[in-house]
Amino acid sequence: MNSEKIEIFDTTLRDGEQVPGCKLNTEQKLIIAERLDKLGIDVIEAGFPVSSPGDFHSVSEISKLVKNAKVCGLTRANKKDIEIAAEALKYAKRPRIHTGIGTSDSHIKYKFNSTREDIIERAIDAVKYAKSFVEDVEFYAEDAGRTDNEFLARVCEAVIKAGATVLNIPDTTGYCLPEEYGQKIKYLKENVRGIEKAILSCHCHNDLGLATANSIAGAINGARQIECTINGLGERAGNTALEEVVMILRQHKDLNLHTNVNSKMLNTMSSLVSDLMGMPVQPNKAIIGANAFAHSSGIHQDGVIKNRETYEIMNPEDVGVNESSIILTARSGRSALAYRFKHIGFDVTKNELDFLYGEFLKVADGKKEVDNDDLTLMMTALTRKIS
Amino acid sequence: MNSEKIEIFDTTLRDGEQVPGCKLNTEQKLIIAERLDKLGIDVIEAGFPVSSPGDFHSVSEISKLVKNAKVCGLTRANKKDIEIAAEALKYAKRPRIHTGIGTSDSHIKYKFNSTREDIIERAIDAVKYAKSFVEDVEFYAEDAGRTDNEFLARVCEAVIKAGATVLNIPDTTGYCLPEEYGQKIKYLKENVRGIEKAILSCHCHNDLGLATANSIAGAINGARQIECTINGLGERAGNTALEEVVMILRQHKDLNLHTNVNSKMLNTMSSLVSDLMGMPVQPNKAIIGANAFAHSSGIHQDGVIKNRETYEIMNPEDVGVNESSIILTARSGRSALAYRFKHIGFDVTKNELDFLYGEFLKVADGKKEVDNDDLTLMMTALTRKIS
Repeated sequence: MNSEKIEIFDTTLRDGEQVPGCKLNTEQKLIIAERLDKLGIDVIEAGFPVSSPGDFHSVSEISKLVKNAKVCGLTRANKKDIEIAAEALKYAKRPRIHTGIGTSDSHIKYKFNSTREDIIERAIDAVKYAKSFVEDVEFYAEDAGRTDNEFLARVCEAVIKAGATVLNIPDTTGYCLPEEYGQKIKYLKENVRGIEKAILSCHCHNDLGLATANSIAGAINGARQIECTINGLGERAGNTALEEVVMILRQHKDLNLHTNVNSKMLNTMSSLVSDLMGMPVQPNKAIIGANAFAHSSGIHQDGVIKNRETYEIMNPEDVGVNESSIILTARSGRSALAYRFKHIGFDVTKNELDFLYGEFLKVADGKKEVDNDDLTLMMTALTRKIS
Repeated sequence: MNSEKIEIFDTTLRDGEQVPGCKLNTEQKLIIAERLDKLGIDVIEAGFPVSSPGDFHSVSEISKLVKNAKVCGLTRANKKDIEIAAEALKYAKRPRIHTGIGTSDSHIKYKFNSTREDIIERAIDAVKYAKSFVEDVEFYAEDAGRTDNEFLARVCEAVIKAGATVLNIPDTTGYCLPEEYGQKIKYLKENVRGIEKAILSCHCHNDLGLATANSIAGAINGARQIECTINGLGERAGNTALEEVVMILRQHKDLNLHTNVNSKMLNTMSSLVSDLMGMPVQPNKAIIGANAFAHSSGIHQDGVIKNRETYEIMNPEDVGVNESSIILTARSGRSALAYRFKHIGFDVTKNELDFLYGEFLKVADGKKEVDNDDLTLMMTALTRKIS
């Protein structure tokens, strides 16, 4: 079976940038957009043009800059939003308007004080209007995660007829379980007339820590676009982390799905976004955290020294990390100690190692990490003992 | 259908503490252990007693202190490890020894240079020996995630016969997809003779961002213990995050599974561990990140102000957060601005709001977050314009 492509839609500059503390100026956004384009992203969501003059300007400048990716602007389902987005995207080589409206009963009732029929009408009008400006129109059914599947299918059918090329099925509140989200995508694939004319897109939030799993479940069940952000930034607990999706599809060839992303750029991409937005990445963040490839327990270190594959499923170089680290702590064992001694130029015998390991544990119980200076001191103690 | 209990096994003090930079002294471990006990944890893995005298001492002191939870010590499958763990656990009210060995072909070949038959013998011996000290013996089949299911079932059968009360099925390298991990648990539930005498436990790592989803898939398929850590700390990209598992089971009543954890303590528990270990939690971390309940886009803020449920699936108070925040940035809309003005004592009319919103966007485009001082200045501008 031939591997099918999953389009990667990056919304770091829209869903990511709207986060408290993450605001960027136009210049910073251009730096990120250019790098996203080089990373191999298929669609860059550049902003929400109507939201402020600054954001309009950014979307417009990004549209001029980006060479390969589609450039996308967000709108609500109204004429003004769509007109302003079209204007901001005017210089894009491959512009996309991303319009939509809430479809869950909670959104219809509390946000719009409206009815299901009225929401479908507004959705159709918005897609048709967007289509009068650009060919590529993505529709989002906001809060699709909590929208009844039958009604959601009706909305999808209506907007495909109106010209939508992509159907975004957001789990806006991050509530779905993977099985449930996957079944939703499957239901739409099987029940929406005309579904072959559009692609389904996963847009998941991480409120329960399931954004990545939900997106992958969506792709397994037929979605062909995943919306994500660098470092999993985004509203509240964030969006699906781009780096996780890319590496899952890369490591699980059995899924027969691939992306166009150059994984070797993931690590530097992560640092760039973290630095410009001032948003730290925790050390235990998957793929791009500082500890993601660090081995510290004795059992693990021993295994990795014997054969990397015992504890590593990815080559750190594949995500742009130079090598996995063997860090010495009180939980390290003899083999890690010998390995590090060798690394700094000492080949120690078994007996020497027994002595050194005792010295090592005394030092290690008192501090977080044992460094090369400590090792040299231990060697001195050994020399004194022998001489 | 009656809800079934999932035992929560916390390994913050073992798999978490072995991480670079996370080392704690005994006093700090006692503070955490006491809080974990109050949080409602079922099993506290207190350490790996043979690894260092400091860790032995900590496990021993924690054993004396903990009132309700089982206290567990890790060992490899050898007599010395087990004897030392038994000694360290001697004062525990409900001691558990956690022993085991690698069962994947990669571990058998590269780590042990051994055979499948020999590994089964060693596993049986270790469990029997541990059983001579304590009633409650958990067996881990290291790298079970990459172990062939048929062989894994044979190992499980053998150790249950030898007296194991819990079977830990670790996805040691964080490689499994949720569907795959769930099927593994299901296979064992259906194919291991005597499985009713033991409970299956999920121990997942987050290398691909799937630890939580895998653990939940395990529980759905019959596992009744989940091993996790506060803040998802642990080797490399970390372990399953305790706070995510607890809140998923709490929010998804349809799964008919529950834990004994007092969710209202999750936020302070997270801060305590982060502070003592010096391991920052990223703002976009699910459940306990600083932004987990912060709304900043205009669309979201408008919804939350109208009805909290439009964008919130959890009550922040349920995890010990006082209230969700409405933060003003360039992506905020009129309704959030009016809400915040009201909050600081100004009821503004629609016309006034139009003027103020223009002022607001000028300020907001230039900075990350608009604060109450900025709002007061805008009010002054409005007063000047009117007077």
